[in-house]
Amino acid sequence: MDVFIEPIGRLINEFTKLPGVGQKTAQRYAYKVISMTDAEARAFADAVVYCKKNVHYCKVCGNFAEGPVCDICSNPKRDKSVICVVKEPKDVVAMEKLHEFKGVYHVLHGVINPIEGIGPNDIKVKELLSRIDDSVKEVILATNPDVEGEATAMYISRLLKPMGVLTTRIARGIPAGGELEYTDEVTLSRALSERTEI
Amino acid sequence: MDVFIEPIGRLINEFTKLPGVGQKTAQRYAYKVISMTDAEARAFADAVVYCKKNVHYCKVCGNFAEGPVCDICSNPKRDKSVICVVKEPKDVVAMEKLHEFKGVYHVLHGVINPIEGIGPNDIKVKELLSRIDDSVKEVILATNPDVEGEATAMYISRLLKPMGVLTTRIARGIPAGGELEYTDEVTLSRALSERTEI
Repeated sequence: MDVFIEPIGRLINEFTKLPGVGQKTAQRYAYKVISMTDAEARAFADAVVYCKKNVHYCKVCGNFAEGPVCDICSNPKRDKSVICVVKEPKDVVAMEKLHEFKGVYHVLHGVINPIEGIGPNDIKVKELLSRIDDSVKEVILATNPDVEGEATAMYISRLLKPMGVLTTRIARGIPAGGELEYTDEVTLSRALSERTEI
Repeated sequence: MDVFIEPIGRLINEFTKLPGVGQKTAQRYAYKVISMTDAEARAFADAVVYCKKNVHYCKVCGNFAEGPVCDICSNPKRDKSVICVVKEPKDVVAMEKLHEFKGVYHVLHGVINPIEGIGPNDIKVKELLSRIDDSVKEVILATNPDVEGEATAMYISRLLKPMGVLTTRIARGIPAGGELEYTDEVTLSRALSERTEI
């Protein structure tokens, strides 16, 4: 856009690389940066570089970590005998916000997706299997309940069964506050077939 | 949020300082930064610092400028005899996108707003008056058609009248694509009273 001088145009262009940010939003963000003090703008830029530089993946579970092993894997209070398998590090964040799960995680960094050419070897399945020994009592498959997530859970469960480890899948059903009338058929059918005694 | 490790938490916090960005959006942006290459993250951070460092305000008109004088004021093809007065530098961008206006600008950097304690001396009114000489043929008042913008235009027009310079106000009326039925009374009344012969 030739209506912007180069430093502003360049910053707008960088902001449009963020998810869901178009030209207009990027402009608003750039104007905000210009209105910051030098120290504020510097702190903002430093946080970007610092985050990129200091966030690694845990060599045990694949979660975000500052050191080689993440806070959860290195916490002696966490129950190492229960492993919750998720697609991405942000799913760990969602689970941790519950403050209920006391086990550990395994991040697959993706799910099986034949259309996009992602097979079992492109995600961290082998790494999960190598973690399974006699001390592991349960593996909870917590991939998303979409086509790829279900297929991945199914695939992993077939590998785990012969190893004699209890393999469970998070419940799928009608979400809290949902209405039967507006629930899709797949979900409703599953909520019925997986009904529990009260 | 203790569910995030420090580098991520810090970056999320910085992103929430952008306009309209809450916790969730800031998280998405932070995840995006983590997924960038080192070079991409560095380019992003550099653009922030570079923009903040290299964007100044034109000493003539108050628009964004890389040097002491902006591209518009230093362009010999622009008609210096017509000055368009706007509230903010981003209004210059909006006008320039038209590619129609060939005059120059004056950015007030605010409008008169008694409720927020902003008087005529808090915005660049004096600087505008000092630009008025015999070479200036017209001053177009292009502040927003809201209460503060109208009051500011009215105030400036009263100062300019005795100086013998033609003072005009951008037209207010029903926007293109608008409907009479849904137009507010103030706008409709003005569209009627400021009707033009066709």
